[in-house]
Amino acid sequence: MGKRIGVLTSGGDAPGMNAAIRAVVRKAIHDGDEVFGIRYGYRGLAEGDIFQMEERDVSDLTARGGTMLYTARYPEFKDAEGRQPAIDQLKKHGIDSLVVIGGDGSYRGAAALAAEGIQTVGIPGTIDNDIPGTEYTIGFDTACNTALEAIDKIRDTATSHLRTFIIEVMGRNAGDIAVWTGIGSGAEQIIIPEADFNMDEIVANIENGRKRGKKHSIIVLAEGVMEGHEFADKLYEYDDYHARVTVLGHVQRGGAPTARDRVLAALFGYKAVELIHEGAAGVCVGMMGEKIVATDINEALESKGHSHDNQVKLYNINTEISF
Amino acid sequence: MGKRIGVLTSGGDAPGMNAAIRAVVRKAIHDGDEVFGIRYGYRGLAEGDIFQMEERDVSDLTARGGTMLYTARYPEFKDAEGRQPAIDQLKKHGIDSLVVIGGDGSYRGAAALAAEGIQTVGIPGTIDNDIPGTEYTIGFDTACNTALEAIDKIRDTATSHLRTFIIEVMGRNAGDIAVWTGIGSGAEQIIIPEADFNMDEIVANIENGRKRGKKHSIIVLAEGVMEGHEFADKLYEYDDYHARVTVLGHVQRGGAPTARDRVLAALFGYKAVELIHEGAAGVCVGMMGEKIVATDINEALESKGHSHDNQVKLYNINTEISF
Amino acid sequence: MGKRIGVLTSGGDAPGMNAAIRAVVRKAIHDGDEVFGIRYGYRGLAEGDIFQMEERDVSDLTARGGTMLYTARYPEFKDAEGRQPAIDQLKKHGIDSLVVIGGDGSYRGAAALAAEGIQTVGIPGTIDNDIPGTEYTIGFDTACNTALEAIDKIRDTATSHLRTFIIEVMGRNAGDIAVWTGIGSGAEQIIIPEADFNMDEIVANIENGRKRGKKHSIIVLAEGVMEGHEFADKLYEYDDYHARVTVLGHVQRGGAPTARDRVLAALFGYKAVELIHEGAAGVCVGMMGEKIVATDINEALESKGHSHDNQVKLYNINTEISF
Amino acid sequence: MGKRIGVLTSGGDAPGMNAAIRAVVRKAIHDGDEVFGIRYGYRGLAEGDIFQMEERDVSDLTARGGTMLYTARYPEFKDAEGRQPAIDQLKKHGIDSLVVIGGDGSYRGAAALAAEGIQTVGIPGTIDNDIPGTEYTIGFDTACNTALEAIDKIRDTATSHLRTFIIEVMGRNAGDIAVWTGIGSGAEQIIIPEADFNMDEIVANIENGRKRGKKHSIIVLAEGVMEGHEFADKLYEYDDYHARVTVLGHVQRGGAPTARDRVLAALFGYKAVELIHEGAAGVCVGMMGEKIVATDINEALESKGHSHDNQVKLYNINTEISF
Repeated sequence: MGKRIGVLTSGGDAPGMNAAIRAVVRKAIHDGDEVFGIRYGYRGLAEGDIFQMEERDVSDLTARGGTMLYTARYPEFKDAEGRQPAIDQLKKHGIDSLVVIGGDGSYRGAAALAAEGIQTVGIPGTIDNDIPGTEYTIGFDTACNTALEAIDKIRDTATSHLRTFIIEVMGRNAGDIAVWTGIGSGAEQIIIPEADFNMDEIVANIENGRKRGKKHSIIVLAEGVMEGHEFADKLYEYDDYHARVTVLGHVQRGGAPTARDRVLAALFGYKAVELIHEGAAGVCVGMMGEKIVATDINEALESKGHSHDNQVKLYNINTEISF
Repeated sequence: MGKRIGVLTSGGDAPGMNAAIRAVVRKAIHDGDEVFGIRYGYRGLAEGDIFQMEERDVSDLTARGGTMLYTARYPEFKDAEGRQPAIDQLKKHGIDSLVVIGGDGSYRGAAALAAEGIQTVGIPGTIDNDIPGTEYTIGFDTACNTALEAIDKIRDTATSHLRTFIIEVMGRNAGDIAVWTGIGSGAEQIIIPEADFNMDEIVANIENGRKRGKKHSIIVLAEGVMEGHEFADKLYEYDDYHARVTVLGHVQRGGAPTARDRVLAALFGYKAVELIHEGAAGVCVGMMGEKIVATDINEALESKGHSHDNQVKLYNINTEISF
Repeated sequence: MGKRIGVLTSGGDAPGMNAAIRAVVRKAIHDGDEVFGIRYGYRGLAEGDIFQMEERDVSDLTARGGTMLYTARYPEFKDAEGRQPAIDQLKKHGIDSLVVIGGDGSYRGAAALAAEGIQTVGIPGTIDNDIPGTEYTIGFDTACNTALEAIDKIRDTATSHLRTFIIEVMGRNAGDIAVWTGIGSGAEQIIIPEADFNMDEIVANIENGRKRGKKHSIIVLAEGVMEGHEFADKLYEYDDYHARVTVLGHVQRGGAPTARDRVLAALFGYKAVELIHEGAAGVCVGMMGEKIVATDINEALESKGHSHDNQVKLYNINTEISF
Repeated sequence: MGKRIGVLTSGGDAPGMNAAIRAVVRKAIHDGDEVFGIRYGYRGLAEGDIFQMEERDVSDLTARGGTMLYTARYPEFKDAEGRQPAIDQLKKHGIDSLVVIGGDGSYRGAAALAAEGIQTVGIPGTIDNDIPGTEYTIGFDTACNTALEAIDKIRDTATSHLRTFIIEVMGRNAGDIAVWTGIGSGAEQIIIPEADFNMDEIVANIENGRKRGKKHSIIVLAEGVMEGHEFADKLYEYDDYHARVTVLGHVQRGGAPTARDRVLAALFGYKAVELIHEGAAGVCVGMMGEKIVATDINEALESKGHSHDNQVKLYNINTEISF
């Protein structure tokens, strides 16, 4: 007899979440399970915003940004008291297992439900690429490409004048988007939380570039370091530079997912259902070394996440090729 | 015997300027003229940054954003004293006619040179669509599409939550980009310099939308009214709304031009050379009622520009279809 | 008391049809009418595939390609016998007026229904831009930009080798897409139904370009002249040229509509409802000289359509600037 | 003392080749080497089309499709006789090491030069993803995204009618693009060289889909299996299906590279220069398990390439989630 599987998205939305929902729904129905969509994440679960999903509910969904199940913040879920209504709803609907697509906050909720006997599986979905247990999260590749297209456009206008541009990209704790788009756009400077920056060097770089005939400079800044305007002010105080600032903002969260994010989402969703059939609980799926893997959620959360060495390495490479 | 035609871009850059340069260069060479590129606008003209252009110099150029001739501000050009070196350079290079691609500031310079006997022709190039003598400027269509793609992406994330988004688009004096992208994206609200706004109505609209099941609201705001963050603060003070703000910024200036901007640029560049051959001076080209026309620059500058009635009409239509 | 307005899409689909449907539905509901969606064009009308539309049915629709009302061919509609079931269905649902979004075949159906006392209004929707009564159809601008992006990509690979590429674009009777994308991409050659072509000249152009250092050639061909592969064979027979062929095909019909197509769709849909309120029947809306106009459908169909002089003029300009 | 490093691109061009050239040039100059660009691949090498490259030669290059060094076929390079002029040119210019960006044909040339004492390093550049020694080639990710965007557009029009579409994508020996875009687009059917197909099953799938309410079907076909039109004919003979065919063609080779292809290109180019400094010769760089690795070219060419098991696995997953 099949399982009764719930699926929800939680935390910030990310492109590719819909493709993951689709894979969960289709694979589960293919294998004889029943699937229940839960709207607005844990809040909707607690409130019983639950409906059975059929294969047609996820038609033509892979290309859509956002999440058809909506998402919401629900801090009450951190407390046992806040979780109880959710557990009651799962029982009421006879849902024995739950796929949670989201970030590390969502993982903590999944771990807590697993402790109550619900078979939970986490899927890493966030543009920031900062979730433990995986080298890539759903949405990261799309966000990089969206940011890169924007920086390409800004370079057009930067090239037409003699200008320094500061581009603030998303990434509160992780510089992944900044490093990838920085290398990708040939940014003269990348500023990330994982590496110190030195205003002397930055100004020297800009000056050296100009001496060698460079017409413009692009600085890509992760929001986790400071705000773009704050950085521009510092640069101005330091040496009278009038840098233009662009804050890419929520544009980075939207858009049709890239090929890679859709494939990743399909593999993750497929694997999550397989794990449920194998009896796993309190695990999260991930991609490590291009292989799909499963990790215990608690272990993953205790790890320092995917190593930031990688970002620092890329950062160092950029300084040698973007001068 | 052919003419010796100079071409420069001035003021803010706009996608399609390169396509216009190409059309000027190719049409002129086709007709037996010689063409001289002038870098960095009027400043470069005053400084003699001038080079002869061949047909190969503009190969594969139509798809490129920005301007291959660069642009710069040069306020000194407002004074006769500041213009004299430019006039000297033109004489020195035997340049008898000049195509100026830019905005109304650039037109004033062109009019001043025409008064000195230089055959000048203006081509309207700016994303803001606020130049007299034409209904459409080169770059406006591209900027609208760039902004619209960004708003489409933001709608993905707005839909996934229950949120109000404020999108600040370019347009200091003209609400054209705001109105076009507002209608295009189905924005619940458009705020432009040409029409008053009423905070009571805006809040009532958002509330009514929510009551009818709307999950999110998009407000498109022209920068000429106020900054996005200022508007968000006002909204918050008014009624405790936490609206998210995205300032699209310089992204709107870049990118490969759209089909329409490339065609417009080709037609304008072609017409400018024709006008020079006809002996015109101190005129600007434009598109009125889908026809390519020429207007005396001084008359154009004295007119109130292309009627803002159009923007207000579109604005009113939007309020009837985006509720 | 309000009207009961039906809306359908017919013929080939075009990007922006959804935005037009949305404008019809919202404007009509705003004015107190009731609106009925009819699926699969005239076939669905004859079969009674009809449902009442609410304002929420058209939410978040402006960015979507295709048509949410689907479309179908229904040749039976040409005969009175074939139309009778449709008339019966309209009566049964109390629908007194009908907005038909489509091409000239759809207009003929609308004219026939108008003769039966149904208030019909046509909206020009097709990528080919070949509908009488308007200078621009919904979908044309998007198709041009889609084709242009594809040609830009092909130019990348053409530039990397020494190659001649033939790009077949849509346009059975009209060379509009070919001319716009040809000028937009700086194609060395444009082949359209409205102008003869001469193989001697084409080969001479390619040769001359090579002598002057041109690394590649792009030929844009409207499908109405002949198939891309057929043209390549002719070129090969003529002078041993191995040109590569790309047939852009149905890609040109899809995609999110451009800003211009969305605005055009909004204006047309809005106007169609206004016309119904004014008692008009058997008319079609259009844009002439950038103004929204209404024309009697029969008169429009009898006219030779929007003048092809325009295409020929653009074609001639291209030969002077793309050598 | 620094090295004298040559760099060329060979075989079919791929998006990201320019970013790889830039990384080679910048890293080498950064480390005190001299770099020489060789135009038109091995043919240009044999003909001495060689120029010294400075850091400015690769400015603003990461976003550009194609290859600034051009590429050409040169079958003569297979023979010792054909290679001798190339070896002579390298000696004449004092070039001691050579970076070859291309496919397996290019690798064979590099191996032959290594046997003559030239320090050669291969970088895998092709959209087909079929080069030994790496799991990902430069250009594959971009080609997938280009193809996917096209399929997304075709789905718009497929959805508007009741239609089956066949999309022929590139991939002579490898189904990678077909599998990735098939999963990415939720194609009902993927046809690749690595897996047999069965017309009975395909027709049954389409029929079952229709019975369950599916409005359209997408079949993604790798060109290596057969041509799209041939497949459509087979389908028609089998069961009277009028499927529409789109051949994506050379569009897939062009366009601005994706973030991933630009990062990959930077890492590969950087690594190639490091390998030359370490004295390596006759090696190729690659990414295996998300790590940058080096493999002996001859070993790589003798291996069966990156395992096609992966494609078959993805193919099987698709059949379970895209029904």
